[in-house]
Amino acid sequence: MELLEKRIQRDGIVEDADVLKVDGFLNHQIDTALIDQLGAEFARLFGDAGATKVVTIEASGIAIAYATALHLGVPLVFAKKAKTRNVAGGVFATRVLSFTHGSSYDVVVSRRFLTPADTVLIVDDFLANGNALAGLLDIAQQAGAAVAGIGIAVEKGFQEGGARIRARGYRVESLAIVQSMDPATGAIEFAPNA
Amino acid sequence: MELLEKRIQRDGIVEDADVLKVDGFLNHQIDTALIDQLGAEFARLFGDAGATKVVTIEASGIAIAYATALHLGVPLVFAKKAKTRNVAGGVFATRVLSFTHGSSYDVVVSRRFLTPADTVLIVDDFLANGNALAGLLDIAQQAGAAVAGIGIAVEKGFQEGGARIRARGYRVESLAIVQSMDPATGAIEFAPNA
Repeated sequence: MELLEKRIQRDGIVEDADVLKVDGFLNHQIDTALIDQLGAEFARLFGDAGATKVVTIEASGIAIAYATALHLGVPLVFAKKAKTRNVAGGVFATRVLSFTHGSSYDVVVSRRFLTPADTVLIVDDFLANGNALAGLLDIAQQAGAAVAGIGIAVEKGFQEGGARIRARGYRVESLAIVQSMDPATGAIEFAPNA
Repeated sequence: MELLEKRIQRDGIVEDADVLKVDGFLNHQIDTALIDQLGAEFARLFGDAGATKVVTIEASGIAIAYATALHLGVPLVFAKKAKTRNVAGGVFATRVLSFTHGSSYDVVVSRRFLTPADTVLIVDDFLANGNALAGLLDIAQQAGAAVAGIGIAVEKGFQEGGARIRARGYRVESLAIVQSMDPATGAIEFAPNA
């Protein structure tokens, strides 16, 4: 999506060969008009996929997932990061390994909000190693819900998450796929067709 | 706001005299059409207050704060809960005491996103004891930003937060103020004029 690629080129900060900061418009300060357009694009891409709910994980995916759900006219469910290993009953729970923080955390969704009658569209701001996404897919599977697809704002194409999830047969639509970054020059290369 | 009060009456769950669950439409599963209307109402109420940014705290306030910011045509900044006491430089940080979890946590906002040129509208889903709100006000003060006001979806009128913040001179607009709840009958009474 050219709009997003241009914005990343303009305002993204290449901190090193692996770390791209987009916190000026995507996940700390949020350009609401931009996010609304990204949500509209996901709604267009997945408009015929029969999603009954959009699902994301707190916190940075909430705005873009909300925008998508609003455009699709369906509810948003966001998975919560649980504080403890012993999660109370009434929830679907899964463990997510965080490379960023070098730790793992539990993620939960109330059983009241996902059922076998649901078809979920999973939306998140970033896809790198794909661990958070795998956790959401696990929760959808526990609920018996179908998966309409996965919408990602920024995919790091040089990490394995996208290939791993696509190899499992899921439709993944990433609005921008970063192919490489040069911390010396700040240059960012995108994969074609994103 | 009658729309919100009716929805709370219909779908809110009174767990005990202090605990109201609205996770079916407000802060776990999110009714996106409802949240859009709440955001539009905050934008109407504070439309002349000169807000340059909407500020909230992750995670459950993000959707309603995003909706408000979108309607106002300004960016959203959400404060992040920090993992450690030693927060890296470049941020405004404050400590928030959580009664819910019996602990405290640090909240941070990058210094790049709040300046003395900003006038912030603070938006959150709940106001009870007011500690999270006091933290956001502290961050605004550290940044030298003006405060246009505070928009709250559901205020617990029987806890001290609202009175404490109003006594400091801030304009607080709560779309529904719960006056009392009866866990035996599930009855919920609202304060007038909300």
